[in-house]
Amino acid sequence: MRPILAELLTIGDEILYGQIVDTNAQWMSVALDEVGIKVIRKTTVGDQEPEILTAFAEAERRADIILITGGLGPTSDDLTKPCLAKYFNCELRIHEEALAEVTEFFKSRGRELTERNRQQAALPVCCTKITNPVGTAPGMWFEKEGKIFVSMPGVPHEMKKMMTERVIPKLREQFTLPVIQHEIIRTVGIGESILAEKIEGWEKTLPGHIKLAYLPNLGEVKLRLTAIGSSREELKKELSSLKQSLLPIAGEYIYGYGEEPLEKVIGNLLRDRKLTLSIAESCTGGYLSHLVTSIPGSSEYFMGTMIPYAYDIKMRQLGVKPEVLEKYGAVSEPTIVEMANIVRAKFNTDIGVATSGIAGPGGATPDKPVGLVWIAYSDKHQTVTRKLLLSKDRLINIRMASVAVLNLIRLSLPK
Amino acid sequence: MRPILAELLTIGDEILYGQIVDTNAQWMSVALDEVGIKVIRKTTVGDQEPEILTAFAEAERRADIILITGGLGPTSDDLTKPCLAKYFNCELRIHEEALAEVTEFFKSRGRELTERNRQQAALPVCCTKITNPVGTAPGMWFEKEGKIFVSMPGVPHEMKKMMTERVIPKLREQFTLPVIQHEIIRTVGIGESILAEKIEGWEKTLPGHIKLAYLPNLGEVKLRLTAIGSSREELKKELSSLKQSLLPIAGEYIYGYGEEPLEKVIGNLLRDRKLTLSIAESCTGGYLSHLVTSIPGSSEYFMGTMIPYAYDIKMRQLGVKPEVLEKYGAVSEPTIVEMANIVRAKFNTDIGVATSGIAGPGGATPDKPVGLVWIAYSDKHQTVTRKLLLSKDRLINIRMASVAVLNLIRLSLPK
Repeated sequence: MRPILAELLTIGDEILYGQIVDTNAQWMSVALDEVGIKVIRKTTVGDQEPEILTAFAEAERRADIILITGGLGPTSDDLTKPCLAKYFNCELRIHEEALAEVTEFFKSRGRELTERNRQQAALPVCCTKITNPVGTAPGMWFEKEGKIFVSMPGVPHEMKKMMTERVIPKLREQFTLPVIQHEIIRTVGIGESILAEKIEGWEKTLPGHIKLAYLPNLGEVKLRLTAIGSSREELKKELSSLKQSLLPIAGEYIYGYGEEPLEKVIGNLLRDRKLTLSIAESCTGGYLSHLVTSIPGSSEYFMGTMIPYAYDIKMRQLGVKPEVLEKYGAVSEPTIVEMANIVRAKFNTDIGVATSGIAGPGGATPDKPVGLVWIAYSDKHQTVTRKLLLSKDRLINIRMASVAVLNLIRLSLPK
Repeated sequence: MRPILAELLTIGDEILYGQIVDTNAQWMSVALDEVGIKVIRKTTVGDQEPEILTAFAEAERRADIILITGGLGPTSDDLTKPCLAKYFNCELRIHEEALAEVTEFFKSRGRELTERNRQQAALPVCCTKITNPVGTAPGMWFEKEGKIFVSMPGVPHEMKKMMTERVIPKLREQFTLPVIQHEIIRTVGIGESILAEKIEGWEKTLPGHIKLAYLPNLGEVKLRLTAIGSSREELKKELSSLKQSLLPIAGEYIYGYGEEPLEKVIGNLLRDRKLTLSIAESCTGGYLSHLVTSIPGSSEYFMGTMIPYAYDIKMRQLGVKPEVLEKYGAVSEPTIVEMANIVRAKFNTDIGVATSGIAGPGGATPDKPVGLVWIAYSDKHQTVTRKLLLSKDRLINIRMASVAVLNLIRLSLPK
């Protein structure tokens, strides 16, 4: 079977000049790889008609599928649409359905449709419209002598939704693609290199048609297994048995599989066991609560948070005993134990968790360096604490401490 | 003066398949933009000889300078060097100075030089070697009929050091480069298309050598002016006067210039005026506090937050009057006023802000749709509220409501 080839074409001066990083192309590469489409080239050109037209022609010679992002905004520097109309030699005309969609989009936000926005509903007559459910610029699908051109907005969340819900399914219909089966194994609480050493023996048992990739991300490591073959059932069986054989080796670090992030897995555990959660977070400053509440339906188990950022608020509002704070300081085991126990009692929840640390860059003392964080978990049976030594970077510390608390909940929940 | 044009060529399957994000290209764009070299295209190809040779030829037709990264490692899938030798039709030979450098590199790390590593010192005889002070693969500089090809390692810190210390200075010697000056104008509280209409007249006054770009991002729009000329002083003066002339038209939306995000600008305002802030956030679930505390030194003005996610916590912990909650509901103007006033009083701060809304996807009622958010600002002089109608997407609503609160602080702070 001949591989199906794709070229990714990004349009926009802002990427050429380095004002923004093109994260779309990487995301699209992964999404295409997952369905067995081979990306053979990525190209970025600026907002100039001749450059764009040349790029279309070059890509058409090389690839079966040309995926274009960017240049669909309502302003005059956005040229993708007129260039496509010119390239496919057909006129731009208001697309009634697209107009209805963009009108509705503005109406639902209580905003007026301007003439500029109306023009976003003008499409080349030779394309098929792709609905944009989360933005104003529709996508476009062109076919020409067996080649497919797809134009999508450059705004990442709009492009991703369009790719996942419309473009990938349509491409699957159009082409015969090899069977590729992925399995993501999600771990937390262990670094990439230590994990790699631990599972070295297991990795050596992988057959040639199954590849392993390590995808590390601040406090977590995802293992991605990619199996290529002709029978999905066969591949699924093989992957399932590999997952099983990994459990005795690294099971304690595995919190889930597939696409569910740690905060979702924790949320499911809490909901299934009918347990409620409250948070007292200091150095993480709201990020831990944000992770928890980013999950739809989190109000079923998450009751609330106190962020006692100032010393005074820790005492007067949360109620940490002044003598504990004075004797041990805000970043200490006795204080974190108080914080977790108090928030659990005050908010009347089954579980209380807490963070306190030196996120940096300021605030360090000789015995309390930047990156020192205390976390605690409390339920009616036990209070568990952990001392973390993280990095010198504020945002990394905030993220890693929050992930560590989620992991502590996972490990400490009553069985 | 004709602009000097560059094309960036990245070589490597790992980027094509999305295994790693290409951050080099963006860094190089910024570095080249700063010295007035115009990047006209970015291309990524895989580790295949025909693809690489075609990309060389295409780039040579378009650009004056072709900057190549990647494919210089010691393994057999690294093809950049043999391809360059073939393209420039000259043989590979051990370069004595390069061999001495790579030998020294290994010696200084107590490692033995393997035959594979020895081959890293083999260079096409028609190139000029560029020393790699932090790695084993030397860079290469080729000249052909006025065109420059530079090949550098793909390892980011090696490439950056080589660019900064060797390549950029050499390019500055070789070409007469224009002066480029940028100005970023940051706006909030107005959509891209409405802003574009508002400043259309101003935009038309821009001279030909100054270009405008819109960079929108959930709730904010950045305007980027790029001026090209021969005198930096002259360009700075022009940009400064353009900034001034924009103020009467759109000044109320402009919160800052350059690289400082909204949360930093708000933090500076609070610190300069010695004002303190507390937050009661419900639907934003911690994200607003996270934005505020992502700024180093925020503990100077930010005292703390209550996230009363559950109804019961709104009453018992925050202290919203039951009769208000019962009569108007949690997502209402009377409740949001209470929340902002109470948190300000309880946390004893100059300013209190609050959010309450339907983030979605659940929780909507016939008169309170997903995306409805109330926000409030309270100080000793006034309480200000805003009703927002945002999107159907939970994370977008969380982000946009948080940005709207920061903007409300900016607009409401005592003068």
